Amino acid sequence: MSWAIIGTWRMALEGIEKAAELLVNRGNSGDAVETAIKMVEDFPYYKSVGYGGLPNENGEVELDAAFMNGDTLSIGAVGGIKNFKNPISIAKKLSKEEFNCFLIGQGAEEYADKNGFERKNMLTDRAIIHYKNRLKETADKRLTPYKGHDTVGIVSLDLNDSMACGTSTSGLFMKKRGRLGDSPLVGSGFYVDSEIGGAVATGLGEDIMKGCISYEIVRLMGEGCSPQEAADKAVFKLNNILVDRRKKSGDISVVCINNRGEFGAATNAEGFSFVVATEKLSLTAYVCSVKDNKTIYEVATEEWMDNYMKKRTAPLKLK
Amino acid sequence: MSWAIIGTWRMALEGIEKAAELLVNRGNSGDAVETAIKMVEDFPYYKSVGYGGLPNENGEVELDAAFMNGDTLSIGAVGGIKNFKNPISIAKKLSKEEFNCFLIGQGAEEYADKNGFERKNMLTDRAIIHYKNRLKETADKRLTPYKGHDTVGIVSLDLNDSMACGTSTSGLFMKKRGRLGDSPLVGSGFYVDSEIGGAVATGLGEDIMKGCISYEIVRLMGEGCSPQEAADKAVFKLNNILVDRRKKSGDISVVCINNRGEFGAATNAEGFSFVVATEKLSLTAYVCSVKDNKTIYEVATEEWMDNYMKKRTAPLKLK
Repeated sequence: MSWAIIGTWRMALEGIEKAAELLVNRGNSGDAVETAIKMVEDFPYYKSVGYGGLPNENGEVELDAAFMNGDTLSIGAVGGIKNFKNPISIAKKLSKEEFNCFLIGQGAEEYADKNGFERKNMLTDRAIIHYKNRLKETADKRLTPYKGHDTVGIVSLDLNDSMACGTSTSGLFMKKRGRLGDSPLVGSGFYVDSEIGGAVATGLGEDIMKGCISYEIVRLMGEGCSPQEAADKAVFKLNNILVDRRKKSGDISVVCINNRGEFGAATNAEGFSFVVATEKLSLTAYVCSVKDNKTIYEVATEEWMDNYMKKRTAPLKLK
Repeated sequence: MSWAIIGTWRMALEGIEKAAELLVNRGNSGDAVETAIKMVEDFPYYKSVGYGGLPNENGEVELDAAFMNGDTLSIGAVGGIKNFKNPISIAKKLSKEEFNCFLIGQGAEEYADKNGFERKNMLTDRAIIHYKNRLKETADKRLTPYKGHDTVGIVSLDLNDSMACGTSTSGLFMKKRGRLGDSPLVGSGFYVDSEIGGAVATGLGEDIMKGCISYEIVRLMGEGCSPQEAADKAVFKLNNILVDRRKKSGDISVVCINNRGEFGAATNAEGFSFVVATEKLSLTAYVCSVKDNKTIYEVATEEWMDNYMKKRTAPLKLK
């Protein structure tokens, strides 16, 4: 018996730190996932999740989130929800419903209202500046409007051998209204089975969903792969199929843990970072590089950590 | 080189007949899928797909559909779309988008308007009678409000070795507003890879999505399983896991074909029917029964076929 928790991107750090305390004290894996993700949703400087998330092309912040219980395989998900503070908590609540566990748009908002979830205007002044600047850039330089798709995804194992996972995102910056990526889609953005392990993904949702990568990673762990083998196998297999069939692949990054608390991470995108804490390993942030269809990761340096936060909180001017 | 097409439920028959003509004449697998599903969407007496589909608890017909191209793995999907005649055609068009290929609600409707898709009020007088009767039944007899989840799903192989698949549904009768089931979710409701094969699912979406069953069937075929072995393995594995972890499983039914035109079908629900036509087998409807974790199917008798249509077109009275 051991506990472990892993999350995508450096932004998961503070949430994982708090959730790890919970796990040490025999807290539940589902609560750990919710705790970690809520902290990311609430932090205004992370511009791809929750409050401060970047808007769609209409200037609206539409949020997606999902939760999965690895014991029962119960799933809850919301897609395109507006004006609620913590989409992950709504998704977690939905996972307890036998029917109607994946709700979108107005239906998701009605459910959240009915169940007393806190409303909040999720569009910050800073996000508005990003939006206006991007509009100008794409008009001036004819750039593709889309960038930014850093979903927070968390997988957790508790001391009762229960596992859970969750995701939360504002999706592709400048997305079309109503666009869903992989994050609320079971098997693509997330999957967990307490008898095996769990995985979550981040990157270009439109490409990630072509391979059901989170399900595939859990399956590979179930066949006996270590989490690291499973993650690398699944990411580079999908990357290579996409390059073969479509000439290119979008970013695909994943993290996973098995039910013994061992972890893995893989990416086809240099610079992907992740955070992990287990019974054996204190809270650590790693940064990834890629070589020969393998992912290599190193502990993030103090300089890297400082730069990460400086970049995100730097003053932002309207162009 | 051969062609084949398979679909869930007897309701796919007329569409498959028309699509098979297309395939014989070297038509494209994607067009065959669209042709077959449009016929089901357009037929007013099928109460779980398209026009005549049963409404959500608010009396609104919200439709889901998806399309996947097995050559490129491109996916298009719509969720909770209202007042459009052919959701499958919108999903097929979306599969050509690099970004924003899965759209929900208002965003999906805006896309459909912008791309010239036909609007239509999808709520029929007959569906309104079903709705009112169900309201009364659930109030009188305290039944669970939910029943009916017969998605049409089609998988097709053409003479150029290209494969495609698609799904279309009005979802669970009396669903909450904005509920998505498995049908628009890649890997759960559908998956196809022209180098292996394709699969589609129908049944209780909330349970089907717990196992990413369509992806799993394609994967098993890729490992060398026959379509029938793959379908049975995946359905009963998921059924048994759900019974083990949750004490029960909802209906799970699947059909699949591989890239040699061989087919399979499996279900945990007696009476599931499907329709298939291949280069070697003329248009045939089968009815399934279940024994010892295996699916047995027999050609539908003339009597069964007559009853099927009689039941669906029988006069309906307000209770």
